[in-house]
Amino acid sequence: MTPTITDQTRITMAHGAGGRAMRSLIESVFIEAFGSTELARMEDQARLDMARLAAQGDRLAFTTDSYVIDPLEFPGGNVGTLAVNGTLNDLAVGGARPLYLSCAFIIEEGLEVALLRRVVHAMRDAAQEAGVSIVTGDTKVVPHGKGDKLFINTSGIGVIPKGIEVAASRCQPGDRIIVSGTLGDHGAAILQARGDLALDAELRSDCRSLHGLIELMLDQCPEIRAMRDATRGGVAAILHEFAEASGCAVRLFEDQLPVKPEVRGVCEILGLDALHFANEGKLVAVVPAAQADGLVARMQQHPAGLDACIIGEILDGPGGRVQVRTLMGGERLLDLPVGEMLPRIC
Amino acid sequence: MTPTITDQTRITMAHGAGGRAMRSLIESVFIEAFGSTELARMEDQARLDMARLAAQGDRLAFTTDSYVIDPLEFPGGNVGTLAVNGTLNDLAVGGARPLYLSCAFIIEEGLEVALLRRVVHAMRDAAQEAGVSIVTGDTKVVPHGKGDKLFINTSGIGVIPKGIEVAASRCQPGDRIIVSGTLGDHGAAILQARGDLALDAELRSDCRSLHGLIELMLDQCPEIRAMRDATRGGVAAILHEFAEASGCAVRLFEDQLPVKPEVRGVCEILGLDALHFANEGKLVAVVPAAQADGLVARMQQHPAGLDACIIGEILDGPGGRVQVRTLMGGERLLDLPVGEMLPRIC
Repeated sequence: MTPTITDQTRITMAHGAGGRAMRSLIESVFIEAFGSTELARMEDQARLDMARLAAQGDRLAFTTDSYVIDPLEFPGGNVGTLAVNGTLNDLAVGGARPLYLSCAFIIEEGLEVALLRRVVHAMRDAAQEAGVSIVTGDTKVVPHGKGDKLFINTSGIGVIPKGIEVAASRCQPGDRIIVSGTLGDHGAAILQARGDLALDAELRSDCRSLHGLIELMLDQCPEIRAMRDATRGGVAAILHEFAEASGCAVRLFEDQLPVKPEVRGVCEILGLDALHFANEGKLVAVVPAAQADGLVARMQQHPAGLDACIIGEILDGPGGRVQVRTLMGGERLLDLPVGEMLPRIC
Repeated sequence: MTPTITDQTRITMAHGAGGRAMRSLIESVFIEAFGSTELARMEDQARLDMARLAAQGDRLAFTTDSYVIDPLEFPGGNVGTLAVNGTLNDLAVGGARPLYLSCAFIIEEGLEVALLRRVVHAMRDAAQEAGVSIVTGDTKVVPHGKGDKLFINTSGIGVIPKGIEVAASRCQPGDRIIVSGTLGDHGAAILQARGDLALDAELRSDCRSLHGLIELMLDQCPEIRAMRDATRGGVAAILHEFAEASGCAVRLFEDQLPVKPEVRGVCEILGLDALHFANEGKLVAVVPAAQADGLVARMQQHPAGLDACIIGEILDGPGGRVQVRTLMGGERLLDLPVGEMLPRIC
């Protein structure tokens, strides 16, 4: 007799043990939502048509991320939205067209199925919106107190079209640095959702997929040198990676940084810099100077790029240095934080 | 200043926060061990040559598994051995040649780097032995009490050569069922390692990669109908999947089941059936009757198949039924367990 799964069901160790209870959970929650024929075959692997992949480009992109965000649900999304869009974005910023995702759930005993369903439905919606399929998965259950409700891993496969070469090492002196929108919205929203802030602001995560915007950007400007989505560590971490990989320096213009007033308020309260806050739907791109203005104008026509702007430039050196031209006209160094600023932000 | 990582370092939240501490951990533990040029590029994704993939077959195989085993270290391996071999095996049993792995770590605050290093070195060794590369990864840290030392996800990519069609639905009446060796070694070893057994037996996990053995099997018998590695849920779970997917029934011969005496002892103490115990280096294959004996003989020449034997046959029906011809000559049904028998076995 197979135990039925309802919204009121709480996950038990049996749901991860490989028997009927696990089958029932997989069928009534995961396959029901994702509805992929590959997943429904219940083989240990998805099998993807090679000719279809090879027709789209000359390199396969492959990436992985685990999502351990706290809280699981927040204004603007939940861990499922994040797990799909975050991994899609990691593919897209390399110039890849995202195609397939895996999903692996580590569930803490006691989790309500109602919450799991909300997360899984958010994953389904995000995948559908992006035109990707969730094709293979895994479910594990850990005892109460040995996890934290739900951790999700997604790995992604995409294809990079011939001729596209996006890499941090390609940044050159004189290039411009573009950001696709306001900084720090995700980080501020999560802090607010945790109740860490005595602030009444309307903060909302910017969690979204970027590959539509990126397709348009690469179409307009195939010479984009480097691109990253500015998640954990924020724009500051990305710029440090660019500076170190290319042996160049970076200069930001403080007066050009797009930050919503309510996020600026959070930063001021905490004494933190929005450049260090996580984003989940913003990218940083480095492009040849001659093409920067045209590209920004084009980006602003896309819903994910409405607030796109130029925020800085690549300098000759010293290699690895990231500096900010302040509002007052001075220069300050922007350090890569040593440690923990915003734990479990993604 | 970048904090240095030694064996005595304990993981802090900072090691997952996207700043210098995380960089330092990734460089001195993960890149140091895996040494893959793709990983060392520190881009958000690996980029794999499509022509090289397409030259090896007409389908890309893609799989994922999270590993939450308790304890992390056990006779015969550790969670790292398991995380590499388990995912490789999921690719190989579909007829794929495993090529690339991702690895994503969820680390509980407080974990000693010495343990992490042992796990990572085991992953490196297992990957090298199997000839696969670990090309992309992720690190997250959760607070003390919100995880259990270490969870690892690996996702894998392989290529299935043209003409190979291995699927549970292809089992046909008259086919023979082969197992590659003794049953239940992993499950019994983990129970012993947990101290759950008042038993002095020398139990050792059978954790190993199977794709060498599988290559040889497909070479000898490309008509293999179905293949699975018998992990969580044991051989019993696999046979239920075969019976349901093919609409056939399965009959096992109890007197043919290979079980080590010390594992049989564990089963007797616990009143459990070795057919339900997890294995981490054993496969079940269904093959046309005419080729079964020859294939078994060939398997026995490979280190991973020394104890290979025929354990049963596929029957016309009733569809989904799995029965055992007992030592006494009677027949009993082998049920798929409803719930939890051996939690966190992988």
